[in-house]
Amino acid sequence: MRQYIYGRNTVLEALKGDKPVYQVYLMKNVKDNRMIELAEDKHAKVNIVTQKNVLSKLVGNVVHQGIVAQVEGYDYYSIDEILQSIPKNKQPLLLMLDGLEDPHNLGAILRTCDAVEVDGVIIGKNRSVALTPTVAKVSTGAIDYVKVAQVTNLSRTLDDLKKEGFWVVGCDLDNSQDYRSIDYNMPVVIVIGSEGFGISRLVKKHCDMNVVLPMNGHVTSLNASVATAVILYQVYNSRHPFK
Amino acid sequence: MRQYIYGRNTVLEALKGDKPVYQVYLMKNVKDNRMIELAEDKHAKVNIVTQKNVLSKLVGNVVHQGIVAQVEGYDYYSIDEILQSIPKNKQPLLLMLDGLEDPHNLGAILRTCDAVEVDGVIIGKNRSVALTPTVAKVSTGAIDYVKVAQVTNLSRTLDDLKKEGFWVVGCDLDNSQDYRSIDYNMPVVIVIGSEGFGISRLVKKHCDMNVVLPMNGHVTSLNASVATAVILYQVYNSRHPFK
Repeated sequence: MRQYIYGRNTVLEALKGDKPVYQVYLMKNVKDNRMIELAEDKHAKVNIVTQKNVLSKLVGNVVHQGIVAQVEGYDYYSIDEILQSIPKNKQPLLLMLDGLEDPHNLGAILRTCDAVEVDGVIIGKNRSVALTPTVAKVSTGAIDYVKVAQVTNLSRTLDDLKKEGFWVVGCDLDNSQDYRSIDYNMPVVIVIGSEGFGISRLVKKHCDMNVVLPMNGHVTSLNASVATAVILYQVYNSRHPFK
Repeated sequence: MRQYIYGRNTVLEALKGDKPVYQVYLMKNVKDNRMIELAEDKHAKVNIVTQKNVLSKLVGNVVHQGIVAQVEGYDYYSIDEILQSIPKNKQPLLLMLDGLEDPHNLGAILRTCDAVEVDGVIIGKNRSVALTPTVAKVSTGAIDYVKVAQVTNLSRTLDDLKKEGFWVVGCDLDNSQDYRSIDYNMPVVIVIGSEGFGISRLVKKHCDMNVVLPMNGHVTSLNASVATAVILYQVYNSRHPFK
């Protein structure tokens, strides 16, 4: 499905990526010869636009930096495809986002996932942010590298993953232990809840253990993308200790 | 200086906090008796508003959730006030944000700072996001607990802090080492650069060492609030090792 993306970095990443780019729209005042060259190499049609509202008609009232492209839409993967893509010599690492709503958080999380070798991200089909141009922009290109699966039933997916040998670690206060107390050298699914409500009741039942970050101040929770990153880097550190 | 803030959590935190709240504006459909009670306890005038544009005139076109309050503006501290407030038995920890632009990043960072015992945050007076209602909202109240200093000259401030015995650790690729290679059990200023350009040239000259996070993917940087959090939790872990 064709889709519009916007912003300099996102469009540049798309032009350098593997997926088709059909059209590039540049505001007249955006003189970016490198982008035009890349677009031509990719056989994308370059449209020089003089009126700003041409772009807002395509992507809405967003900070597009005068740069929009029509691309092949974001791919979702099946859980099977994700599992099969994991190198045999790597401990599998999946991230499940249960009801995450903010595209900025998802974009930032994809960036982190790309950095720390997360094999796939699992999101729900309902009440959850999906892959959108805003997510793409905030991810600064990570959306093209991190595999995302959209499933209808997160609990059943966790059941299936457990049968495949995964341990399910929730980021939740209930019966929790310090996030540093676990050796993540095993196939792991990290589960992060929504910004407002945390992990949902049914999904919580499927967590083998819960972890929390120490918090010594007054505020009771961290930003979702921040908490996710601290835990994912801990998993990374477990697996690649600094020597 | 009086200032308007908005959003349920931010206004609730202000009502529960120490600073004066002068006015609370609630859209008629927002039936929040707890908030009205708190406002009355604090001798804030409660205004029930029927027209949405009354609120947008106060705070602009933002997601105010039908809740706005007029409060005493955000306090800035001097570097001296911050240094003097650090408990004698605590290793000082400061965070300098060099040109950070995104209020969402600053809000998320303040939340993290509250959690990991950062004694103060230093921002520049120019080309940098300051304490705004958006920062307050995203910080979910942390803005009331984390001390922020606004200085005109970041380099000179670092000079002064070095004289006070601080080590300056920049988050920058140049001549960098793994962020886990440092024992942060010393008075430390962590320096984080802007979202687009990193640490500025002059400030970089004042860094005693630079650290980076391992990144094994395709994308070359993390979200600023994410990178800050991973480093600050590493400092915390250095000082409070998990046993």
